[in-house]
Amino acid sequence: MEPLPGMEKLKRVTIVAESVVSERIQEDVLRLGAKGYTTTHAEGRGSRGVRASEWEGHNVKLETIVTPEVAGKILKYMEDKYFQHFAVIAYTIDVEVIRAKKYR
Amino acid sequence: MEPLPGMEKLKRVTIVAESVVSERIQEDVLRLGAKGYTTTHAEGRGSRGVRASEWEGHNVKLETIVTPEVAGKILKYMEDKYFQHFAVIAYTIDVEVIRAKKYR
Amino acid sequence: MEPLPGMEKLKRVTIVAESVVSERIQEDVLRLGAKGYTTTHAEGRGSRGVRASEWEGHNVKLETIVTPEVAGKILKYMEDKYFQHFAVIAYTIDVEVIRAKKYR
Repeated sequence: MEPLPGMEKLKRVTIVAESVVSERIQEDVLRLGAKGYTTTHAEGRGSRGVRASEWEGHNVKLETIVTPEVAGKILKYMEDKYFQHFAVIAYTIDVEVIRAKKYR
Repeated sequence: MEPLPGMEKLKRVTIVAESVVSERIQEDVLRLGAKGYTTTHAEGRGSRGVRASEWEGHNVKLETIVTPEVAGKILKYMEDKYFQHFAVIAYTIDVEVIRAKKYR
Repeated sequence: MEPLPGMEKLKRVTIVAESVVSERIQEDVLRLGAKGYTTTHAEGRGSRGVRASEWEGHNVKLETIVTPEVAGKILKYMEDKYFQHFAVIAYTIDVEVIRAKKYR
């Protein structure tokens, strides 16, 4: 659908990770260019990528709204640093925001 | 991607705000045409727009699925009434729903 | 917007339901092909579809990233088995993921 009037398209990055890993990721995200983020507690269940075994436990879901450029940097960093050793989920969604300048 | 068969495109509006402000926003959202909403507790961190200073604290994340028209009204209202004085984040995402009539 | 380099488009399915119903839905979602899911506690309010009356209470929000095919199966199942008797919200969002193979 077309963006609503006065709104701009940005990316929301979502990262779900175990609590202890999430603390490091929160610092990473700000260092890579995010202006802020929101976290919520979550429970995860399932086979999560590199670990073939069934997996279940406490997680932190981080959400941040960023430019496509920063989104690309964050996702690349997640892939390089975390995906091999941790059960991390990371993805982006297109969003339309008002007052886009505060996310740049 | 194409919508899945039998599904309709609507907008999900997400609003993250401090708890005390969120209570007012919840009333606003229903008055502006939303048929319901879901809230979750969240933590926020970062420089949040009008307040240049670092910001950290308890938030409520509100999510509601509405028509594009109602989404536009809600976002406009957030901009007019809250953005100048409160650390509010508001954005929309395109969603595909089943039984779209219950959100109209 | 174009997908970021190295990322693939999949669907995120979100299902909000009362706790007791959500437990069954979590099993359904895995059986229908999801490789895992994340849940968060949520509060719901509003007129929710088949029940015309005002509704308010504890919910579980389930999120899972799946192929479009599995998304279609899950949404169809929700419609067939839950929508008539329970206050369930179900929708999909397009997402871009890294390491898409772990969701297949």
